[in-house]
Amino acid sequence: MELKDFASSVSKRINSFMEGYLKNFDDAASSLKEAMEYGLLLGGKRARPLLVYATGLALGQSQDRLDYAAAAVECIHAYSLIHDDMPEMDNDKLRRGHETVHVKFGQTLALLAGDALQTLAFEILSDKKSGFSDKSVANLTRILSSKAGYSGMCGGQAIDLESEGKKLSYDQLRLLHSKKTGALIRAAVLMGAYSCDNASETDIVALDEYATWTGLAFQVWDDVLDVIGDTAVMGKTQGADINLDKSTYPSLLGLDESKKFAQECAEKAIAALSKLKIDTSLLEQFALFTVNRDH
Amino acid sequence: MELKDFASSVSKRINSFMEGYLKNFDDAASSLKEAMEYGLLLGGKRARPLLVYATGLALGQSQDRLDYAAAAVECIHAYSLIHDDMPEMDNDKLRRGHETVHVKFGQTLALLAGDALQTLAFEILSDKKSGFSDKSVANLTRILSSKAGYSGMCGGQAIDLESEGKKLSYDQLRLLHSKKTGALIRAAVLMGAYSCDNASETDIVALDEYATWTGLAFQVWDDVLDVIGDTAVMGKTQGADINLDKSTYPSLLGLDESKKFAQECAEKAIAALSKLKIDTSLLEQFALFTVNRDH
Repeated sequence: MELKDFASSVSKRINSFMEGYLKNFDDAASSLKEAMEYGLLLGGKRARPLLVYATGLALGQSQDRLDYAAAAVECIHAYSLIHDDMPEMDNDKLRRGHETVHVKFGQTLALLAGDALQTLAFEILSDKKSGFSDKSVANLTRILSSKAGYSGMCGGQAIDLESEGKKLSYDQLRLLHSKKTGALIRAAVLMGAYSCDNASETDIVALDEYATWTGLAFQVWDDVLDVIGDTAVMGKTQGADINLDKSTYPSLLGLDESKKFAQECAEKAIAALSKLKIDTSLLEQFALFTVNRDH
Repeated sequence: MELKDFASSVSKRINSFMEGYLKNFDDAASSLKEAMEYGLLLGGKRARPLLVYATGLALGQSQDRLDYAAAAVECIHAYSLIHDDMPEMDNDKLRRGHETVHVKFGQTLALLAGDALQTLAFEILSDKKSGFSDKSVANLTRILSSKAGYSGMCGGQAIDLESEGKKLSYDQLRLLHSKKTGALIRAAVLMGAYSCDNASETDIVALDEYATWTGLAFQVWDDVLDVIGDTAVMGKTQGADINLDKSTYPSLLGLDESKKFAQECAEKAIAALSKLKIDTSLLEQFALFTVNRDH
């Protein structure tokens, strides 16, 4: 299957699953529910659910079960965006062309909606309706929490804050991104694997290697796009990071070297897949997509 | 054992466990780690860990394993206090006589520390070092997330916000408190039970009934103390809720009726324990304590 078609079907599927899941809650706190739904369904590429499905389907798991793992990782991503956009963080008024949650619902509800979406991730993972074995629930909770917390995403955001206005070394920049964005991409791939009781330790090591390189390729290419991209296509101001004097791969390695490095990361991701005895064509296409996109 | 001695030993034990747990993290985001530790170790009664230990020990579980369940519920409580104190919520500058997290570390780190402490709860629950069976991890994750999220604590906070300046009915007030504070007290008792593979369905129903009445007794007595309490002893301004024109049990039922109701709730909690074939003396003492405390 072509990645484009798969991405479009995944996007529809996960949106409908998450919308349905929220609808099952009562309306005792309807304003909170509305803010959670708005933040969760604001759109986006749904890259993390895509990685859960692509990995899990390749290992033979059913889409119905993968819905739960995919929705959980997307809830974590959505909560982090809501809190990131708040005045005390990036103070963003727009996301994907729509008002951010705190602009539309106020800061108090944005804070609570982010909090409740994080909890929802673990509620969905441990929902008996998923049909996951207890072993899978335990593994999925372990992966998602360790990649989303201090050692992963939250830690990455804190390092990013501490780095403002400082010149980072190459190693520091890689550490920052491995946590801030890389950790949740790894979580998505690993959750696809841990959704399946038959994933071997070798499979998991190879998939983790794939995810690590793909996450890095994605981030390096983001930095490249920030220099060469077209503002109209990207939907954000081109050169925004350079204007903020942020450390980026192009500022550290140069533009040409950064492009080359992004391609190498994608190649390493694809090489890691060769160790697997499953159909990894969607994962391969995704790695190539990360360094060939224009936004 | 006397509740007072048990509470003091639990408090020392859980503080030392949580401090040790955080110390195991690297210092890649040291300011975040410091803010998390400050928020987590700021003190407090540790009532929720106490309920986890009292329940789990009565059912025969070891303290070493219960540490993980007790720390998880306290991480959720701590994160909710950090976010509650923030300017967009209650804008409190002091908690237990110390600067609140956002006053000491700034709003950005307070937001992130709350987020990371919520994640930490699920990381601790699913930590392989706990020795919990996969079944216990799945059950504990299910209980904690369902009681902390939209259907529980977060939902209760949203209802509280929506209720500001409104006169609540008795049923609305009970719903609010059953979610805002009651849900996490139930989670603590149930997590004590689900930490043990041998807790029967009958035990769990009885313990849940105990926890529901105890949570209500606690809240009604809090409202009573707000009217009759001594500001110096309570560490907060007496009459604060009445001044804010908030709906409380005394404002709805009258003071004498509220005192009587709190006692009845504690008696119902104790009656529920009689269905259990384990030593429930600590839980019994705790229910009595909730309606006999002066702060």
